[in-house]
Amino acid sequence: MPPYEPADSVVSPRFTGIRTFMRLPHVRVLIEADVAVVGVPFDSGASFRPGARFGPEAIRSLSVLLRRYHPDLKLDLFRDVSVIDYGDCAVVPGSVEQTLMRVATQLRLVVDAGVTPLVLGGDHSITLAVLRALAARHGPLALVHCDAHSDTWEDFYGQRYDHGTTIRRAVEEGLLRPERSVQIGLRGPLFGPEDWEQSRRLGMAVWPAAEMHSVGITTIGERARERVGDAPSYVSFDIDVLDPAFAPGTGTPEVGGLATREAIELLVALRGVDLVGADVVEVSPPYDGAGITALAAANVLHTLLGLIAYRRTPTGGTR
Amino acid sequence: MPPYEPADSVVSPRFTGIRTFMRLPHVRVLIEADVAVVGVPFDSGASFRPGARFGPEAIRSLSVLLRRYHPDLKLDLFRDVSVIDYGDCAVVPGSVEQTLMRVATQLRLVVDAGVTPLVLGGDHSITLAVLRALAARHGPLALVHCDAHSDTWEDFYGQRYDHGTTIRRAVEEGLLRPERSVQIGLRGPLFGPEDWEQSRRLGMAVWPAAEMHSVGITTIGERARERVGDAPSYVSFDIDVLDPAFAPGTGTPEVGGLATREAIELLVALRGVDLVGADVVEVSPPYDGAGITALAAANVLHTLLGLIAYRRTPTGGTR
Amino acid sequence: MPPYEPADSVVSPRFTGIRTFMRLPHVRVLIEADVAVVGVPFDSGASFRPGARFGPEAIRSLSVLLRRYHPDLKLDLFRDVSVIDYGDCAVVPGSVEQTLMRVATQLRLVVDAGVTPLVLGGDHSITLAVLRALAARHGPLALVHCDAHSDTWEDFYGQRYDHGTTIRRAVEEGLLRPERSVQIGLRGPLFGPEDWEQSRRLGMAVWPAAEMHSVGITTIGERARERVGDAPSYVSFDIDVLDPAFAPGTGTPEVGGLATREAIELLVALRGVDLVGADVVEVSPPYDGAGITALAAANVLHTLLGLIAYRRTPTGGTR
Amino acid sequence: MPPYEPADSVVSPRFTGIRTFMRLPHVRVLIEADVAVVGVPFDSGASFRPGARFGPEAIRSLSVLLRRYHPDLKLDLFRDVSVIDYGDCAVVPGSVEQTLMRVATQLRLVVDAGVTPLVLGGDHSITLAVLRALAARHGPLALVHCDAHSDTWEDFYGQRYDHGTTIRRAVEEGLLRPERSVQIGLRGPLFGPEDWEQSRRLGMAVWPAAEMHSVGITTIGERARERVGDAPSYVSFDIDVLDPAFAPGTGTPEVGGLATREAIELLVALRGVDLVGADVVEVSPPYDGAGITALAAANVLHTLLGLIAYRRTPTGGTR
Amino acid sequence: MPPYEPADSVVSPRFTGIRTFMRLPHVRVLIEADVAVVGVPFDSGASFRPGARFGPEAIRSLSVLLRRYHPDLKLDLFRDVSVIDYGDCAVVPGSVEQTLMRVATQLRLVVDAGVTPLVLGGDHSITLAVLRALAARHGPLALVHCDAHSDTWEDFYGQRYDHGTTIRRAVEEGLLRPERSVQIGLRGPLFGPEDWEQSRRLGMAVWPAAEMHSVGITTIGERARERVGDAPSYVSFDIDVLDPAFAPGTGTPEVGGLATREAIELLVALRGVDLVGADVVEVSPPYDGAGITALAAANVLHTLLGLIAYRRTPTGGTR
Amino acid sequence: MPPYEPADSVVSPRFTGIRTFMRLPHVRVLIEADVAVVGVPFDSGASFRPGARFGPEAIRSLSVLLRRYHPDLKLDLFRDVSVIDYGDCAVVPGSVEQTLMRVATQLRLVVDAGVTPLVLGGDHSITLAVLRALAARHGPLALVHCDAHSDTWEDFYGQRYDHGTTIRRAVEEGLLRPERSVQIGLRGPLFGPEDWEQSRRLGMAVWPAAEMHSVGITTIGERARERVGDAPSYVSFDIDVLDPAFAPGTGTPEVGGLATREAIELLVALRGVDLVGADVVEVSPPYDGAGITALAAANVLHTLLGLIAYRRTPTGGTR
Repeated sequence: MPPYEPADSVVSPRFTGIRTFMRLPHVRVLIEADVAVVGVPFDSGASFRPGARFGPEAIRSLSVLLRRYHPDLKLDLFRDVSVIDYGDCAVVPGSVEQTLMRVATQLRLVVDAGVTPLVLGGDHSITLAVLRALAARHGPLALVHCDAHSDTWEDFYGQRYDHGTTIRRAVEEGLLRPERSVQIGLRGPLFGPEDWEQSRRLGMAVWPAAEMHSVGITTIGERARERVGDAPSYVSFDIDVLDPAFAPGTGTPEVGGLATREAIELLVALRGVDLVGADVVEVSPPYDGAGITALAAANVLHTLLGLIAYRRTPTGGTR
Repeated sequence: MPPYEPADSVVSPRFTGIRTFMRLPHVRVLIEADVAVVGVPFDSGASFRPGARFGPEAIRSLSVLLRRYHPDLKLDLFRDVSVIDYGDCAVVPGSVEQTLMRVATQLRLVVDAGVTPLVLGGDHSITLAVLRALAARHGPLALVHCDAHSDTWEDFYGQRYDHGTTIRRAVEEGLLRPERSVQIGLRGPLFGPEDWEQSRRLGMAVWPAAEMHSVGITTIGERARERVGDAPSYVSFDIDVLDPAFAPGTGTPEVGGLATREAIELLVALRGVDLVGADVVEVSPPYDGAGITALAAANVLHTLLGLIAYRRTPTGGTR
Repeated sequence: MPPYEPADSVVSPRFTGIRTFMRLPHVRVLIEADVAVVGVPFDSGASFRPGARFGPEAIRSLSVLLRRYHPDLKLDLFRDVSVIDYGDCAVVPGSVEQTLMRVATQLRLVVDAGVTPLVLGGDHSITLAVLRALAARHGPLALVHCDAHSDTWEDFYGQRYDHGTTIRRAVEEGLLRPERSVQIGLRGPLFGPEDWEQSRRLGMAVWPAAEMHSVGITTIGERARERVGDAPSYVSFDIDVLDPAFAPGTGTPEVGGLATREAIELLVALRGVDLVGADVVEVSPPYDGAGITALAAANVLHTLLGLIAYRRTPTGGTR
Repeated sequence: MPPYEPADSVVSPRFTGIRTFMRLPHVRVLIEADVAVVGVPFDSGASFRPGARFGPEAIRSLSVLLRRYHPDLKLDLFRDVSVIDYGDCAVVPGSVEQTLMRVATQLRLVVDAGVTPLVLGGDHSITLAVLRALAARHGPLALVHCDAHSDTWEDFYGQRYDHGTTIRRAVEEGLLRPERSVQIGLRGPLFGPEDWEQSRRLGMAVWPAAEMHSVGITTIGERARERVGDAPSYVSFDIDVLDPAFAPGTGTPEVGGLATREAIELLVALRGVDLVGADVVEVSPPYDGAGITALAAANVLHTLLGLIAYRRTPTGGTR
Repeated sequence: MPPYEPADSVVSPRFTGIRTFMRLPHVRVLIEADVAVVGVPFDSGASFRPGARFGPEAIRSLSVLLRRYHPDLKLDLFRDVSVIDYGDCAVVPGSVEQTLMRVATQLRLVVDAGVTPLVLGGDHSITLAVLRALAARHGPLALVHCDAHSDTWEDFYGQRYDHGTTIRRAVEEGLLRPERSVQIGLRGPLFGPEDWEQSRRLGMAVWPAAEMHSVGITTIGERARERVGDAPSYVSFDIDVLDPAFAPGTGTPEVGGLATREAIELLVALRGVDLVGADVVEVSPPYDGAGITALAAANVLHTLLGLIAYRRTPTGGTR
Repeated sequence: MPPYEPADSVVSPRFTGIRTFMRLPHVRVLIEADVAVVGVPFDSGASFRPGARFGPEAIRSLSVLLRRYHPDLKLDLFRDVSVIDYGDCAVVPGSVEQTLMRVATQLRLVVDAGVTPLVLGGDHSITLAVLRALAARHGPLALVHCDAHSDTWEDFYGQRYDHGTTIRRAVEEGLLRPERSVQIGLRGPLFGPEDWEQSRRLGMAVWPAAEMHSVGITTIGERARERVGDAPSYVSFDIDVLDPAFAPGTGTPEVGGLATREAIELLVALRGVDLVGADVVEVSPPYDGAGITALAAANVLHTLLGLIAYRRTPTGGTR
């Protein structure tokens, strides 16, 4: 029996208690944890609407609605896996570069303790810090990148670190294995046709939303699983891969995105991959009226946690 | 010509007048009515977000947008059926059990007058009161239950009457014919695999959202019609069967649900069933910004009213 | 190189600057423009929720998120076409008829300068003014009308000019070629079966939402293109053709509509038509929380602009 | 004992029942009524933010919080006075002039039955209709006009009937006795110093907000009572006389206004005047988040009703 | 140096970290604490708008803006006092009586450990549980009750436990010393003149808002301090004592209330009283747009904590 | 007659046209301008809620409600002064220091052309750039600083440039004349008593909100005018000097602030000072529901423009 698990909402109502992810214990000791949920409340890398600094708070707030069993993965997430809410990383608002350094340092503590980080963003710039921490231990990673945007631009207004340059920087820093990486869900008006080409030139596969809709979600998911293969892998889930109807609360919404159900299906199709970390980013609560974006993010994290647990259960994978 | 019908919005704008359902006359005399729209403004049975006590007000407010002809059923709802807005039942906030008793008593007046109740919730706990009133006249009913949740738990925090235990209580009280009943649209993280099993053990069919999506809405609707057969039947429509994008204003939202269009299609496929009552529950206006949840609920009620009218028209059914 | 084009958001952030459509220059001189974006901030023709007078402001505000390349049309919108934001037409709040006259007069200046107007509504009554201005130059137009409603009623409360009578008036005034015109996306409760019949009796094709869903978006789009043929044509896009989940901020929402992605697909299928003008109407910002309706409208306009540019590029059409 | 009075909220919760003003009976028969609450849901006269057409609905919705006893007037409002909610007048959206004619005609029925109208606006243009109906019976009236604006402009965009011209029109039509009338609470940026002068030239007293703050609310109220004297009088209360902090939901907010408490005090100081009618206008629900504007309006109406009742009680006045 | 104190927001931004009150440690061990902040997330006792079950979450969320020094009390709150966030009490939604019993039992643990509870409501019914726990240790208490309502009604809809009956029940149960208790800020429409009389008949002083405004806040505060004297005392602060402009997010708002500044002044005037507990109740986040109600509540709690600390500092009191 | 002035809202409704400040011409040529309204859309210096990057857009949007005559200053703002809307400065989101440099450079163009800048923020960090540009021409300035916070902290999280350090940096850089400067409106929980002391040690006067309330607004305003004397002066108005009821849409709200009316009175009392520039900062639209914060900011700017015009009119000052 894992030492850490959520409070039981049949016993105490879900609206009681300090808001931690899924009502998990808030613990800073890593010794008995398999997975640590970590917030990175930061949005100085956002190029349009800010607010993602309140993303971790909002996701935690809605995550109390989640229950422990995943019906698609047919799995009790906490039967074999011990999960804690580690709290937030310290950040430096107003400075992307300093924040990246500090966050990477803090996450190294988690990663080096053999604990898998499940990260709540924050804008997408923070993914670079997570990748730095993980690659230091696991080497370059396979990436499944769900997003409306490629995030492979060179710079913005002269800034090299920003939520639109993260993936390019990650490739340049050798944190990724592009030949095992894929970008899914890209769409929307572009600067030019080269926007997506630059991702391909970096070596990644690019499967825009249009392709996903014509080929089918499950097929795309299976292709992603094949491409990733056995490599240590990372899922970076920008909530704007969802349509604004399903995720209005985000910094740079793009029409024409996935339904939340489709996103979950896509992720479920990845079961079996060796997930060494994952994030959900770009939830911006000030634009999220009834909280449906944060709820969608919480459910995506629930499935990502399920993918981690899947590998660790006798029926699901390596453990 | 039925004595009661809505005000004509070609003559007076839809935003004028005291808000009754579809601008119907607000009447407490049942003698010339076939159908009575009744509100049950109650939310003490809600386990997460309250607010459904304002559901009837909000649904009425948006229902003024509805017009009298149903294009899918090809039917003027008011040509052969006389409908009134009966107002609200008295409730006892803070006590589920007392409310259930009082509401059942009040609805008995409606049902015993031979009038079909169309109920505006309120949280899902109130369905038990409606079923009690109807079963007293019609015997156990076939149930078509559209919901994200099975509502067949044993209890919560020691409470036996709550919006998550309604269907179990109804079966235990002999109000339903489980072998003619079905739950449609279930989904989301569970306490465990037994959550849906317990519904099956109670004798009902369970068709989760995933099955609905793979089999197709119309097919599911037809299967439901077959299962119900000729039994006096009841539709309980929890608005959270819709996706939060389509129905953000609800107490316990679950991602991955139906589009409103799909829900309407599902219900239209039920045409011909012997509907002796129906409800739409769990609309929570404080979380419903622009009112799209209440609008969806109003449209669902429009179709439910259409199903009742369908049976009573020369072309549509028994009358 | 066209003289006018948007500011570059790689150089200056998209949230800087006076809000014009896509950050285009705000210019009142027509001489070097091919297309003029024009607002008509008016909502006295609205029969339910007002607010569309703030539609142009809101659409401009969100349009800064758009970029110049359209991935589905594979086209840089500004490579061959010079576009300006012409500002708004003067209107007379509280008088539909006076507004129609004044707006038509103002738009005549644009049209007679050989500039294609791309109009931001405003409620749907204003389309009549645009059609008057265009037909004066081009003769009767083929119309592709995307809408939940047919807008072919005779009158409301004795008023002949209103957002629900626009298309009937346009046909009566000889501004349209009904045999080359089509209404797409109609749905929802009606006054009676004659509601859509009256459109057919006026000579137009009517393809309700249900038909669109069964036949497929692209097929419908291609049929529309065929019907329009080579005629000078106009697209009038009422944002309520989208489902309220995708466009909550509108005056008379109807459930069961299109996803934004489907609407874009529909329009893309029209490539090659000779578009002499277009509008997007009925965006009501007071009901548009996070602005997703305005964002959808901006994207629709982006595609409409793309259709205009498509005809004018060497690869795309007549130019 | 008056035949009509509100439902008792100790017996049934205030959130139950069809929303009428203060949960009064919705009755169209005037014979046993002393006062009729009447809505005029109209906003085509608004020059900035519309939405006041939903004012009567919102005010009724919040008015259920009111109780029958007025602690400052020390009066049970319903002990000696019979009050009904008469519903709404029919209006013609998009035409101020036609609406004014129709509303005046409808209100004549009320006034001629000897019933005092208490009107829920609607934008301020509708006050002209009420004054026409009342002056036809009572002759020119003394006016206490609480507002941020003088509403005495000549015209707007060539329109003579608009919410900014109402009081000038009323004086011109001989509906008022300017020498017994007063405007209270004016403030904010003006077109020029003549804005308030024109009111004085029409013969009315003008006491801007600044004067009210320096002289004191009660003193201003007493001066108003003196000026009105024994004349049949009318109170027109534009909710924008309150500060936007207290009444954000209005069409043309002006900073620097009254607190709601001050407004109530001002009105209480009028006790004893011969009130033959009153209105509260310019509540715009789309801009009224939590409904505090509608709640303020409801409380102002509660006090206005108190002033009417005050005259009719043995201790309070003429009856 | 006290063992527990808030995180330093000069070191880590205030928007980081699990949301506890003022970023205090979340601790369930009472041994080294002087004061325990405790949430009671419950709203089944609310008679109009629910939502106060999310009050503790919202107050904690905004409380991170607070800093440790109180400029009016001239006091570092944490220099001599050790404060923890104890988390929430378990509650039973849908049952006031069971909740009162369970909450009292849980708070007994806190009180019996010699720790002063500072309670975050929840609707006002929960105050009864706090008083039961405190009176068991301290005997009957002096009460300073800030509220728009007297909460001394006999029952509602036959229910004896509700947020409108709390104070009557407390007196009946012998938990209070009425001759040392006072109700401040009462106002608004009443059922009748007896509403406030019944409080006086129970032995308490009643100083309505009108009296407070005429006498002056500080004077009222000093009178309250005199009346309380040296008795062990309790402050129950219903946020609806503030005007809806300052506290829109509450269950039964009443116009004409205090500004937040006035409320703080009132409490500061109580310095020196022997506060053995305090609460802030009736914050309803679904109606609290930008969170200003929760922020006001957090500031009131900051001052209440200051009153407790004041007694315990060498310069301020008993310690 | 000045060459530039606002559009006339008696001719065209205020909701028409591209949104510039007060509907002034958007001009980049400075030659015929006396005053330039300039936006600085930046919020990377914010320590809590971001969003001020959309401040200039929101203030412009609501500023269309303003009219040209200031009743308290008895002045037509545009009779003798030519005012343009210069648009926004380019900024570098995510870097305070680079933004400060770029903004100062851009504003130098304005200042060196002899044009007075009226700045729309943006968070308070941007004031440093304005002061740099102005001091380069005018030498050290007298400052009237209206704010809830002193903004004289040394650093935050190691960052020296932030919205909480602006004034300290300005003094250190020799941009201010502390002995002629004053901070007004400070209040709220502090880190310690030294928070305000540090301002005094820098040489400025500090008049907290409490002092302002006891001494009176006008007196404080006159004292400020005396302290400033004839020095070239600057007003920096942080909107959080207002109470959250009047200005909810701001980054670090503090309860207990001014009413908007009081703020206007305070500024009006400064008439006659030699204002060489001014700003209004910290308006955060995502938290500003109905826009009352932006409206308050617009009115404050209206008065600041009035102060500038006052000096330039024959009756008012130097011109």
